[in-house]
Amino acid sequence: MRNISLTVSYDGTNYHGWQCQPGVVTVEEVLRDKIQRIVDHPVKIYAGGRTDSGVHAIGQVINIFTNSNIKEEGLLRGLNSLLPSDIRVLKTNCMADDFHARYSAKSKVYLYTILNSPYNSPFYSRYVWHLPFGLDAEIMDRAIKTIVGRHDFSAFKKKGEYYKDPVREVLKAGVKKKGRFIYVMVEATGFLRYMVRNIVGTLVLIGLKKRPADFMTEVLESKDRINAGPTAPASGLVLKRISY
Amino acid sequence: MRNISLTVSYDGTNYHGWQCQPGVVTVEEVLRDKIQRIVDHPVKIYAGGRTDSGVHAIGQVINIFTNSNIKEEGLLRGLNSLLPSDIRVLKTNCMADDFHARYSAKSKVYLYTILNSPYNSPFYSRYVWHLPFGLDAEIMDRAIKTIVGRHDFSAFKKKGEYYKDPVREVLKAGVKKKGRFIYVMVEATGFLRYMVRNIVGTLVLIGLKKRPADFMTEVLESKDRINAGPTAPASGLVLKRISY
Repeated sequence: MRNISLTVSYDGTNYHGWQCQPGVVTVEEVLRDKIQRIVDHPVKIYAGGRTDSGVHAIGQVINIFTNSNIKEEGLLRGLNSLLPSDIRVLKTNCMADDFHARYSAKSKVYLYTILNSPYNSPFYSRYVWHLPFGLDAEIMDRAIKTIVGRHDFSAFKKKGEYYKDPVREVLKAGVKKKGRFIYVMVEATGFLRYMVRNIVGTLVLIGLKKRPADFMTEVLESKDRINAGPTAPASGLVLKRISY
Repeated sequence: MRNISLTVSYDGTNYHGWQCQPGVVTVEEVLRDKIQRIVDHPVKIYAGGRTDSGVHAIGQVINIFTNSNIKEEGLLRGLNSLLPSDIRVLKTNCMADDFHARYSAKSKVYLYTILNSPYNSPFYSRYVWHLPFGLDAEIMDRAIKTIVGRHDFSAFKKKGEYYKDPVREVLKAGVKKKGRFIYVMVEATGFLRYMVRNIVGTLVLIGLKKRPADFMTEVLESKDRINAGPTAPASGLVLKRISY
């Protein structure tokens, strides 16, 4: 059995997230169906990140085991000819037996894009959170820097979600403005569900000056989801890169 | 009657071009319907550029005459709340009576985007022509510079289209590579139908080294559509700006 990793990029707009669920179309299901058609046996997919409904990926990484003798290049070409245009496989690699897309990952980078302009764009609306009111990106950058490090991120988890260990380590975080776009980047060893979107929702309150810059620390230390801002919409979020 | 100009941006993917036609949905029709709903009387739209099916616009300019006393700002906000998300009005201005979006235009800029990478992108596929084989953007840039000036552009017209005067003046043209993207820019006082797409289709033959760099001049001087390259797909084309 060979262990093959695949780097996958997708527009999540038309999918109910990554993970297979009955009755809805997910990226995992579409991908698994096409992989199985090529390798001609049932396949289990291990994924680096399980993106939520409507969230996109530039560099999702998965791995599969196969006894098919198809070459990596053939799998890459075959998949891209079978997959719908909103899912592309960018790379296939033969890996050591112990490589696991999720457990071998050292860190993941999520990027959140805000379009800060009077009106939304017909071209970018599927990939941004449109906010017409002026945001102060510098204050947002200072605020997000305070969450770098090992913390209990319970305040930013999805409502009602339970974690035995809600501690995660954020390695890097920053906010950058480029023209009308504001990019929020978070790199961490792991994430709670909705963590980035709840961080962004909280940051936006700070950027709008509805809350002071130290509100971020206050929310984090409270460890209570009730204190954070609203969950930013899925459209703006993209799983950018997984490092191994 | 006030003469109001509107700058309009749209993703043309889901429209049968700009101009109203029976039985299909066009950008003009959708826009006119919403404008009429706001000003409450029939409206004729004059458009700076009539984009073809599937072609996009960043800065289409139109003008309308109205006796409604709605403010420009109100028309802007009202339209953006009624229009579908793939059409946005970016600006409204009160103009002199003799302003005409088409006849007052000094020049128009079209931008064509090629994605030159092994696989298409799930995010950009609606806005590019995907070509997996390596293109030489420098040779393409040299080739397109030879069409600058006043010429009979019959060789680049749409097959079967007839023009009393097929002479147009190209003011500026260039090809630029940025990462995986190749941008073809053409600014002219006017365009024949399919002119930019046929220029791009011809340039691509040169960029792929299937034709020499002076093939562009040869095609232009032949004045015969039969000699030009294939028509590049609509998806890559965008009406960028109209200057007055």
